[in-house]
Amino acid sequence: MITLTSDFGSPYPAAMKGVVLQRTDARLVDIAHDLPRQDVRAAAFWLREVVPHYPPAVHLVVVDPGVGTDRAAVVVRVGHHAFVAPDNGVVRPAARALDGDVEVFEIGVENPASSTFHGRDVFAPAAAEVHEAGVENIESLENVTPAADCVDLTLPDATVEGDVAHGEVLVVDDFGNAITNVPGGFVADAASVLVNGERAPVEPSYAHVAVGKRLVTVASHENVELAVNQGRGADAFGVRPGDDVTVKK
Amino acid sequence: MITLTSDFGSPYPAAMKGVVLQRTDARLVDIAHDLPRQDVRAAAFWLREVVPHYPPAVHLVVVDPGVGTDRAAVVVRVGHHAFVAPDNGVVRPAARALDGDVEVFEIGVENPASSTFHGRDVFAPAAAEVHEAGVENIESLENVTPAADCVDLTLPDATVEGDVAHGEVLVVDDFGNAITNVPGGFVADAASVLVNGERAPVEPSYAHVAVGKRLVTVASHENVELAVNQGRGADAFGVRPGDDVTVKK
Amino acid sequence: MITLTSDFGSPYPAAMKGVVLQRTDARLVDIAHDLPRQDVRAAAFWLREVVPHYPPAVHLVVVDPGVGTDRAAVVVRVGHHAFVAPDNGVVRPAARALDGDVEVFEIGVENPASSTFHGRDVFAPAAAEVHEAGVENIESLENVTPAADCVDLTLPDATVEGDVAHGEVLVVDDFGNAITNVPGGFVADAASVLVNGERAPVEPSYAHVAVGKRLVTVASHENVELAVNQGRGADAFGVRPGDDVTVKK
Repeated sequence: MITLTSDFGSPYPAAMKGVVLQRTDARLVDIAHDLPRQDVRAAAFWLREVVPHYPPAVHLVVVDPGVGTDRAAVVVRVGHHAFVAPDNGVVRPAARALDGDVEVFEIGVENPASSTFHGRDVFAPAAAEVHEAGVENIESLENVTPAADCVDLTLPDATVEGDVAHGEVLVVDDFGNAITNVPGGFVADAASVLVNGERAPVEPSYAHVAVGKRLVTVASHENVELAVNQGRGADAFGVRPGDDVTVKK
Repeated sequence: MITLTSDFGSPYPAAMKGVVLQRTDARLVDIAHDLPRQDVRAAAFWLREVVPHYPPAVHLVVVDPGVGTDRAAVVVRVGHHAFVAPDNGVVRPAARALDGDVEVFEIGVENPASSTFHGRDVFAPAAAEVHEAGVENIESLENVTPAADCVDLTLPDATVEGDVAHGEVLVVDDFGNAITNVPGGFVADAASVLVNGERAPVEPSYAHVAVGKRLVTVASHENVELAVNQGRGADAFGVRPGDDVTVKK
Repeated sequence: MITLTSDFGSPYPAAMKGVVLQRTDARLVDIAHDLPRQDVRAAAFWLREVVPHYPPAVHLVVVDPGVGTDRAAVVVRVGHHAFVAPDNGVVRPAARALDGDVEVFEIGVENPASSTFHGRDVFAPAAAEVHEAGVENIESLENVTPAADCVDLTLPDATVEGDVAHGEVLVVDDFGNAITNVPGGFVADAASVLVNGERAPVEPSYAHVAVGKRLVTVASHENVELAVNQGRGADAFGVRPGDDVTVKK
């Protein structure tokens, strides 16, 4: 199985798939191709949320603001999973969320600055080759060499001091929910909280407030989420990815 | 085969797919994940249009404004098809459109109010289990019990009195075509009709009028559709889903 | 393998897939369903870019502004590939880009003007039948007859006179990059060029200019592209598909 994740929109991912299918009969599963453009942190967040739900697979990931620079191309192996991606940290949070040691390999790229479509010309063939060799046999690939490490990326942690948590908005999802880095446990015993100074109820899910009303909830990602029942929480709370969020009990 | 239908946008459906693929090698086919948010009627309409074209399959459907309330989770079997969905009627029109008796089962949910992502944690595992057991063996599943019935949902019918039909807009499709519930046969013998008082020609297809011009046609769903050749009929006719439509011959 | 390409948005392609899967177990791969509406030239461009990366396949293509007119439905065979499409030229540039002679067959359509959803009712069954018969056995299909030719469509060429190239914008991609028909080789030796009178640097890839800055580059399609690093080139250069572009060294 090969999963595909990018910020390519349409139809560029279809060219990657053709290249992969020239080399393997593997099942292909799209994770997303409409991730926020060149936003490595958002992609890292979503991969961390989604990949741990998958059986062993090769994960082809291309969110790559550094394409055409000398950033490396890497294969990151964790247990029976392998990520094939630019070396910008995008797969690190997901790799940490899986069971196993993280091993890094570098993909030889003949002419890194020559092409603007490394997804098709570098990463897609590499993902197919890793799949065909088997994740346990990455060492056998000619074009791949062990590497000491790869770029790290850590999603920021919130700080909790007594009744106040200082965090930030990590991403805004397609529903408009603002997902913060404040741990859900912080609001577990609260009936309501102040979010950046404005009070909102803490509820187990959206339908516990009237349509159009704001709430604070702990969604599937186990973080504090700023939401509106059948509306866009990010707009109602006036926040965007990267904005500071103070939650006070 | 498991089809997937939701209003989740991206990338949440990918988490559902991972959960399914942990449990089965079934072929997965996306019907849509960009349905109008929490619009049970629109989803019911599209499932009724699309599902009858499929071979026997398990249909995982999550359009669920009641998530986190005590609404039940159901499996609905019709012939060799099974739907796994929240008990809000979303699959009833499609179930009626298939051949066979409708049988209903309830899925045991441990803590209905605890999670905002039942698609991943309740419905995806249930769909995989139904697929692995086989649609004819739903009774054998531990977590599923026969139920007397499930919530019904009926798409409204138009009323036809002589030369006048009173109906409404059911959905607006991606092209901007306004699909009404007025039966296509009503306009079969008309060269033109009055739609909410304004005259428009009745044509067999879009290209029979000039680009940008309005028409009334009977599209693949066999209902009266308000359209514009290479344009947005809903805008030109000034209608939205749920709006009344009077068609006069 | 059957690839699917359309301008149908969602969820109409799912009905086509059901029809196909009633008739074959072939792997299905979506190329795109969000191509610019009824824009035959844009679809022809993207198919030419993407299809040559695929292994032998049946390519189901429905971008069809003439649906409901008497335009024919065709199968176009090139080597081990076959295209099933309306006869409007949409597959010609891709067919020319593949190795092999182009052979044309016409699909018998009982009542061409009767339906507005030929994708589901005409092209999807035909694609499944071609796949099941095998691309080398199209002649054996009852409903398909050899044809002398099909509608041609040629993407326009730029003219180069010394230091000046006159071309046009072929498409604007999802990133907002304006892809022209000026051959990349024309700017290979230039440090900067005048695009419609305004100077912009020629760079190997986006990251060679600051975020938000304009550049001229030669992307994967090997044509001159008007771009902005992490922005929308078409907006910055003020051009749309079909607009003239003069590039002066």
